[in-house]
Amino acid sequence: MNFTVKPLAAVALAGASALAAAQTSGVTLFGVLDVGVQRLKNGSKTLNLESIDGMQTSRIGFRGREDLGNGLSASFHLEGAIGPDVGAGGDWRRRATVSLASKAAGELRLGRDYTPTFWSISRFNAFGTNGVGAASNLVYGFDGVSGTSKTVIRSDNSVGYFLPDGLGGVYGQAMVAAGEGTTGRYVGGRIGYAGSGVDVALAVSETVNTNAGDKFKVTNLGGSYTLGALKLLGLVHISKLTTREQKNYVVGAHYAVGAGLIRASFVNAQSTNSANGENYTGKLLAIGYVHNLSKRTSLYTTLSQVNNSRTGRFLIPGGSAIARGEDSSGVEAGIYHSF
Amino acid sequence: MNFTVKPLAAVALAGASALAAAQTSGVTLFGVLDVGVQRLKNGSKTLNLESIDGMQTSRIGFRGREDLGNGLSASFHLEGAIGPDVGAGGDWRRRATVSLASKAAGELRLGRDYTPTFWSISRFNAFGTNGVGAASNLVYGFDGVSGTSKTVIRSDNSVGYFLPDGLGGVYGQAMVAAGEGTTGRYVGGRIGYAGSGVDVALAVSETVNTNAGDKFKVTNLGGSYTLGALKLLGLVHISKLTTREQKNYVVGAHYAVGAGLIRASFVNAQSTNSANGENYTGKLLAIGYVHNLSKRTSLYTTLSQVNNSRTGRFLIPGGSAIARGEDSSGVEAGIYHSF
Amino acid sequence: MNFTVKPLAAVALAGASALAAAQTSGVTLFGVLDVGVQRLKNGSKTLNLESIDGMQTSRIGFRGREDLGNGLSASFHLEGAIGPDVGAGGDWRRRATVSLASKAAGELRLGRDYTPTFWSISRFNAFGTNGVGAASNLVYGFDGVSGTSKTVIRSDNSVGYFLPDGLGGVYGQAMVAAGEGTTGRYVGGRIGYAGSGVDVALAVSETVNTNAGDKFKVTNLGGSYTLGALKLLGLVHISKLTTREQKNYVVGAHYAVGAGLIRASFVNAQSTNSANGENYTGKLLAIGYVHNLSKRTSLYTTLSQVNNSRTGRFLIPGGSAIARGEDSSGVEAGIYHSF
Repeated sequence: MNFTVKPLAAVALAGASALAAAQTSGVTLFGVLDVGVQRLKNGSKTLNLESIDGMQTSRIGFRGREDLGNGLSASFHLEGAIGPDVGAGGDWRRRATVSLASKAAGELRLGRDYTPTFWSISRFNAFGTNGVGAASNLVYGFDGVSGTSKTVIRSDNSVGYFLPDGLGGVYGQAMVAAGEGTTGRYVGGRIGYAGSGVDVALAVSETVNTNAGDKFKVTNLGGSYTLGALKLLGLVHISKLTTREQKNYVVGAHYAVGAGLIRASFVNAQSTNSANGENYTGKLLAIGYVHNLSKRTSLYTTLSQVNNSRTGRFLIPGGSAIARGEDSSGVEAGIYHSF
Repeated sequence: MNFTVKPLAAVALAGASALAAAQTSGVTLFGVLDVGVQRLKNGSKTLNLESIDGMQTSRIGFRGREDLGNGLSASFHLEGAIGPDVGAGGDWRRRATVSLASKAAGELRLGRDYTPTFWSISRFNAFGTNGVGAASNLVYGFDGVSGTSKTVIRSDNSVGYFLPDGLGGVYGQAMVAAGEGTTGRYVGGRIGYAGSGVDVALAVSETVNTNAGDKFKVTNLGGSYTLGALKLLGLVHISKLTTREQKNYVVGAHYAVGAGLIRASFVNAQSTNSANGENYTGKLLAIGYVHNLSKRTSLYTTLSQVNNSRTGRFLIPGGSAIARGEDSSGVEAGIYHSF
Repeated sequence: MNFTVKPLAAVALAGASALAAAQTSGVTLFGVLDVGVQRLKNGSKTLNLESIDGMQTSRIGFRGREDLGNGLSASFHLEGAIGPDVGAGGDWRRRATVSLASKAAGELRLGRDYTPTFWSISRFNAFGTNGVGAASNLVYGFDGVSGTSKTVIRSDNSVGYFLPDGLGGVYGQAMVAAGEGTTGRYVGGRIGYAGSGVDVALAVSETVNTNAGDKFKVTNLGGSYTLGALKLLGLVHISKLTTREQKNYVVGAHYAVGAGLIRASFVNAQSTNSANGENYTGKLLAIGYVHNLSKRTSLYTTLSQVNNSRTGRFLIPGGSAIARGEDSSGVEAGIYHSF
């Protein structure tokens, strides 16, 4: 019994009947399950839990591409998060897009998608945006506290444009999203260059929060350099919301050892508020090891420590609340499996 | 890596062991992503948004059929809506049915399914039931206001019967649904004839709303006639709820031009309430163009205008509320992609 | 158009590049739709409804296995319930696990999974845990009333271990689950033997309910014996919660007749509470017939009668509430179809 994908009869078959049959196309099922155990210590409180997504976010998705001829193609991407610890799932809120692309002119993409500024947070961190060691634990925190912008990672209602391949290593994208609801009107872009082991990108965005009426601005500049078994990564990330500003400086490294990979990351985060003079910092230091059993399956472990200045409140999410100035630490080990 | 579908071991393997192995059967994955941009004007208020489902409702589904021999077959259909603008999805509320069918005797279908009266609204409208130009914008409005019947489109808990093929072009179906909850006890049927370019059908239904205790009755008669590149469509749709009645008269046309299709529709809707003498009308005029890039992918645009009589309140859904007598208009352009 | 499954590029490709490509592996789609009609009588009140899951729970899932060489494998299992009567679905709360297994050492499994004690309720009952005749209608009732333990069937956040094959028919599993939330800290195990038509297992568990602070304990011993067309099943199930105790004694039989299977079950349930002297019993007697149209598709019907002692309140779920001492009965007929 083969699993087949058949095109729906289009509404407008009369018009389509003059067209050649759709060329061969495939639909791909893909996914990740990533489950482990975690020990979080916030201040003096410790929590043991079954953790998920320590290496990549658990997910399931379908994607496909149809060749329309003349360098044109249509494609779709549906991807939703899974919570294997409790069996959660169901939506496609990681990404739900339809695209029309031209080899010469680039890709037009509509739907819910990642924001341009997100990609530098993800790509130029040794731990991506997952697990106790992720720099995003401090980067997202700013918005997590303010709770006013949902565009740090993704945006609903987006219209995106991506530069085509073949520009000598230059890549780029732009996104706008209508401020229909509370998500906010988003405008952002990212431009980068990849080649000869170097990858570097600059991204900026502005979100006008429809409800609060304020503006959430993000600027980041990041890069990586790969030389043999060693990859160095760095990121400067600045986010502003009215009188508040957060600056994150991130450096990291990957070092391949046989079927394993050592990962290390250091983050310095500074949060200021010109309205009340608040000014605190947090530092995250993380180290981890990934053992690849295959290209699809890995075992991993990560240790991470967050130290706050006297009034700081950065932390590794998932555990207890911390008092200002308290520290946060986490250790985890898990299984990553993709399909 | 092939995607395979394997039958579960039935509970009753002992009994099944005497049977021949299931014949070759397939499971089909299918779906639609339809995203665009829309501008709605209700009264003096304008809303710009990323719109979905302008041509067909975004969806994902699985369906399969097992040949049981002797003209018998079992089949299933699972289909749920997707909201690619926000990544919504997860249920199978478009349709979730299991069927037992005989080539000679027809199909018995159980589960959540479309009501018989829905099909004439969908099939005999130039814009189906999607987008700013759909006649359903006025047809559904009646029930949208009353909020008491959910069976305009589908019914939970249904038992349906479909006539077999091979009756000289005559087709038909009947449905009953138990009034277990608030959905209401539904009884409906549809009978039609298709052949020589003609398709015509009559459908009736009655829903006893369990909670309110009232009855929602629908009668519609529709047809289409195809001659070369031209298809004409017409529908009379009457719905009643206690003292209220709505009559919809719909005419429309499809005209194929190369890889394109021009669509036009006019709707006259009259709503009366014998309890308070209320009597108003709304008229919808819509025109659109679909450009088929392939059998699976199209670009489309539609313009639609709704004019109300002095106390009328028909509108294109999705925008602001209107005052009685105000008009509503919408324009949209989008990408339709199926897989 | 073939449906293909492609591995995601692992985060740590640098490290993985030294590995051989993943061996051929498959992902399997599977599911069940089971819909019927049911008549329930509780006391003097009767309810007719479209019922689901009379033979097996309606579901959809994906599972896959990757051979890692040297007797090692990684696998995943995602499975969620479907409600075809109303189109419900979306999560993976039937099971969401990732596993690492060795032919010699057994399987380590993480995620949301069935508890060890559940399996004996399911396997050693003539009607499994589905439909009006299921012994689980009385077994679950105890917890259904107390509402304090969710581990009767499954546990979130579990870490499970399964003995390998090849132990001369001995099988076994153990599970622990962290008490992160309200689900409770679970510890349980099951050990059994299967061979020569015999299958027998003992299982025990303890759940410390984090919120209530009390302990829910389950012990069960069950078995089946198959001789030709006849299979006999039996189970003793004891559950305790503080001062309350429930004892269930279950006997049942399967008898294969051509393409059919006759199923019969008798349950005696006794509920006591040492705190207030409450002591009542309920008896369930059920008989049913399954007609297999193929290995994937069956028609079934079941009759079930529950008689309570003077203060008893056992019932077949889904209908009206009963007064103490009232009886409950149900009859159903349905279509089971798997893919």
